[in-house]
Amino acid sequence: IAVYSAIDEADFLAIDGEFSGISDGPNVSALTNGMDTPEERYAKLKKHSMDFLLFQFGLCTFKYDTEASKYIIKCFNFYIFPKPFNRASPDIKFICQSSSIDFLASQGFDFNKVFRHGIPYLNQEEEGRVREQAEERRNQQANGAATPSYISPSSKGPAHVPEEHKDFISRVIEKVDGLFTNSEKTYPTFFGLHVETIETEKKERYIQISKVDDDERKRREQQKLEKEQEELNDAVGFSRVIHAISKSGKLVVGHNMLLDVMHTIHQFYCPLPQDLQDFKEVSMCVFPRLLDTKLMSSTQPFKDLIPITSLAELERRLKLAPFKSPKVETAEGFPRYDTAQEQLHEAGYDAYITGLCFISMANYLGSFLTPPKAHISPRSKLMEPFFNKLFLMRIIDIPYLNMTGPDLRPKRDHVLYVTFPKEWKTSDLYQLFSAFGNIQVSWIDDTSAFVSLSQTDQVQIAMNTSRYAESYRIQTYAEYMKGRRQNKDVNSQPDQSWGEEGWVKSPTTAGTTGYGYKGYRPGAPMGTLGKRSISPNQADQGAGEAQATDGWNQSSHPDGMGNKKLKTDGVPPFLYST
Amino acid sequence: IAVYSAIDEADFLAIDGEFSGISDGPNVSALTNGMDTPEERYAKLKKHSMDFLLFQFGLCTFKYDTEASKYIIKCFNFYIFPKPFNRASPDIKFICQSSSIDFLASQGFDFNKVFRHGIPYLNQEEEGRVREQAEERRNQQANGAATPSYISPSSKGPAHVPEEHKDFISRVIEKVDGLFTNSEKTYPTFFGLHVETIETEKKERYIQISKVDDDERKRREQQKLEKEQEELNDAVGFSRVIHAISKSGKLVVGHNMLLDVMHTIHQFYCPLPQDLQDFKEVSMCVFPRLLDTKLMSSTQPFKDLIPITSLAELERRLKLAPFKSPKVETAEGFPRYDTAQEQLHEAGYDAYITGLCFISMANYLGSFLTPPKAHISPRSKLMEPFFNKLFLMRIIDIPYLNMTGPDLRPKRDHVLYVTFPKEWKTSDLYQLFSAFGNIQVSWIDDTSAFVSLSQTDQVQIAMNTSRYAESYRIQTYAEYMKGRRQNKDVNSQPDQSWGEEGWVKSPTTAGTTGYGYKGYRPGAPMGTLGKRSISPNQADQGAGEAQATDGWNQSSHPDGMGNKKLKTDGVPPFLYST
Repeated sequence: IAVYSAIDEADFLAIDGEFSGISDGPNVSALTNGMDTPEERYAKLKKHSMDFLLFQFGLCTFKYDTEASKYIIKCFNFYIFPKPFNRASPDIKFICQSSSIDFLASQGFDFNKVFRHGIPYLNQEEEGRVREQAEERRNQQANGAATPSYISPSSKGPAHVPEEHKDFISRVIEKVDGLFTNSEKTYPTFFGLHVETIETEKKERYIQISKVDDDERKRREQQKLEKEQEELNDAVGFSRVIHAISKSGKLVVGHNMLLDVMHTIHQFYCPLPQDLQDFKEVSMCVFPRLLDTKLMSSTQPFKDLIPITSLAELERRLKLAPFKSPKVETAEGFPRYDTAQEQLHEAGYDAYITGLCFISMANYLGSFLTPPKAHISPRSKLMEPFFNKLFLMRIIDIPYLNMTGPDLRPKRDHVLYVTFPKEWKTSDLYQLFSAFGNIQVSWIDDTSAFVSLSQTDQVQIAMNTSRYAESYRIQTYAEYMKGRRQNKDVNSQPDQSWGEEGWVKSPTTAGTTGYGYKGYRPGAPMGTLGKRSISPNQADQGAGEAQATDGWNQSSHPDGMGNKKLKTDGVPPFLYST
Repeated sequence: IAVYSAIDEADFLAIDGEFSGISDGPNVSALTNGMDTPEERYAKLKKHSMDFLLFQFGLCTFKYDTEASKYIIKCFNFYIFPKPFNRASPDIKFICQSSSIDFLASQGFDFNKVFRHGIPYLNQEEEGRVREQAEERRNQQANGAATPSYISPSSKGPAHVPEEHKDFISRVIEKVDGLFTNSEKTYPTFFGLHVETIETEKKERYIQISKVDDDERKRREQQKLEKEQEELNDAVGFSRVIHAISKSGKLVVGHNMLLDVMHTIHQFYCPLPQDLQDFKEVSMCVFPRLLDTKLMSSTQPFKDLIPITSLAELERRLKLAPFKSPKVETAEGFPRYDTAQEQLHEAGYDAYITGLCFISMANYLGSFLTPPKAHISPRSKLMEPFFNKLFLMRIIDIPYLNMTGPDLRPKRDHVLYVTFPKEWKTSDLYQLFSAFGNIQVSWIDDTSAFVSLSQTDQVQIAMNTSRYAESYRIQTYAEYMKGRRQNKDVNSQPDQSWGEEGWVKSPTTAGTTGYGYKGYRPGAPMGTLGKRSISPNQADQGAGEAQATDGWNQSSHPDGMGNKKLKTDGVPPFLYST
């Protein structure tokens, strides 16, 4: 169908998912602490987000028309629902989060489309099992073994029949016997009854028994087989679209796409692996080339030009100089989105906007070339620094998850782990550390937080000062992680890769001092550009800014009933994915 | 509004709920084992069903018009959704079960009505907390303390401002300062700024700052207070309807209503208590008089006349002699349901049908009186035997939960607990016990089941036979319960009331032999009737029939991928509630 040829001909693809919820954890700050390690973040998202349903999947295919110098776009907006395939198929349970549902409702989301007409799906294991079962059933029937669709009255096994049903059943048996006996008299050929369970649209089931001769019986069984195969393909459903994307090997662009990637793999391929490294490997099998526009836009040379990287703000910014809106055209017969009339949070529209943003940013890089180029292909070397790095939301000093190698390991020797009475608010922490200049607070829960000091040498002073304090307690980050690791060893959770030494000295952060990290450079190809270098050096910018650009309060705090909020213009948790 | 006066004037009420799912347990038979004790069943339903959402509540009020000899009916169909009241209110997560959602979708259920326009609710604790918070906020504001709506620029606390926002913020501060300074010059009176957070329909938030004089400020704050109170009442929302039903003390009729009662209390009053006895007490506070038409129709004198007690079948049966369809009329301006055009599984329609069934059965009891009476009031003594007994689905020997006293405790000395390899099917168990005549199998999981023999004296023979068996193991029910209790003591789950002795000899079952139970009699008032006794004596009927009448396979078995199903006409698990 249309979607497969659209994928085939495309130069790149853009995707977006809408979910029935974001986090079933106690609060968002517990889910996304500013000092999470990538392993911790992955484990939290896996634990607290995968029970939600990805129920709308937006896919836009972008094909560059060289002659017209514009992209031809085809957008698809798939509603997804795990409709049970048959009574033996898994009965999926998924969680809905009121705030997310309410938010989508306020954006005009059509829930009836999801639940009444949603496309089903099976992951690879389920598909295998269902196909196996169908095979088995066929073999059994061929051998005349158990659960045949063709039975003789004598095969009735022992079954307890409730008193009040006996009447009905004996009447049915009589009728069937009648059919059978009657026909034996009339026909000399082998002859039997065809039994079929039929379900009406209203889900009422009944058994249809018809007398058939041998040819008719074979014809019906062939028919049934074909119908079964067709139903099975339908059941695999949306997973086939994902398989096609995967097989194409094409660049897949998303905005803040970590959760989209996780949900896609979880729903349409396999349960997510325990280990982050295994997840990266699976992801790279499914999507060999990913690009996250949120990460791209918060990396140089875009970072200085784009203060807020939420999808809506990014799109607005990229309409202005020095950026140029790309020339695009919607293919005949496909939904035409208008960026002036924002339809944000429809997955198809968000995917569309994401694709446009990517094109604008890619083309902007062309302006640095000598001579400048107006169109930069998604296959250009200029894109390479941005490939396979997924934005990490609200982690102060690790901007992305590196899908094809080890992650950045910033030193955290200026970070303190502080515990305190549950009445404390962010302002109490500012008060406590007022002597040390600017601090950053990352709430863990009601009674603990990470506090980042601006100077490493202040750590010892703070530790000394706290020695005789009664209301609060301070540990260095290294001490805290050591304690956690010891606890974890008991629970055998894998987090070995973040050994204590890793935080002090690691291959990627070697040579880095204080706050920043130097590993974060797009790398060699950038050096070949003219005009000025576009290598970002976030160490110069002060850490943590990338995280504050999406409307989140940088001093993250527990949600819920607490009064810890300092500001009123925060964004509700369900905006996490944009 | 209309619903409160309808409740006020009614003679009785009928209710029905639709849920986003039934069971998140591994399978239905694990949830509803035929040998559950009432305590076990309650604990299972509480654990595996309360995370679903009751999202449609049907209420029909029935008022008898003596002159016209007919009931006037008002039906309400409430869509319920826990829309977050404000950013501090609980963000409810609920589970959806695909099969249930798919089933409701196929019946034309309107999910957009639920999620876009559903009525919110708060339970009593939430309501209390929200009202308290509002109170606190008001007091603080009155004292000029924290989070005031009226601030002076000097109260700005320490807050970390991300680099890229500093520009914007200083511009805003300038503007606000300007407003402030400017006004001080012009007005001699006390004067300030009014600050308000405003949220648009699209959930975008901004802060509105206006300069106001003292009177205007007071007016605005009064306005805000009133708006808050109104919003708070709206937030309590549907719970107020349930409070009204509760306060009316009127008879509430439902069909197979245990889950409806549990969900109603759980959502609109308080989390369900751990203990069954406590649940009964809470229920009787909320609904002082309940009647379950499924239990009524499976009790004499109805039991012999009504073979299938699912709501749809019951309704069809009660249209035929000896029953009479009641004379009813829908009140002006209320939805008119037509029983010929079945709209089953809309909660309002199901409540309507339930009410009609109740009237038919009640009036039928009048035919036994001398002289016969055509109309029996819901307040009639004749109803008393059916009050406050909730149907227990698929328990072989305990037909109902007795809400106002101890439950029936049948002897289970003919019951064996059997463990076996997971390949075994029901037919293997029939085979194994083929020497003992008819048996009843209640599957627990893949490798264990209860087997009820028809004669108690066979138990010893079976035990002896099994002694040297290798593939399976047999325990008596008493031994099994003793083992469970010992495990439970460790886990400190309360199930003391079902001590071993209880099963052998208990107040309610004293004098009963073998299979049956004698405690199950409507009691004294029935004796005053003419013609013939309508006392049921289920002991004569053979146990377990009540459970087989709803399309369930009596030899219950694990669902899922197994091949253990013997029949194909079962009803999907989501029909549990009808």
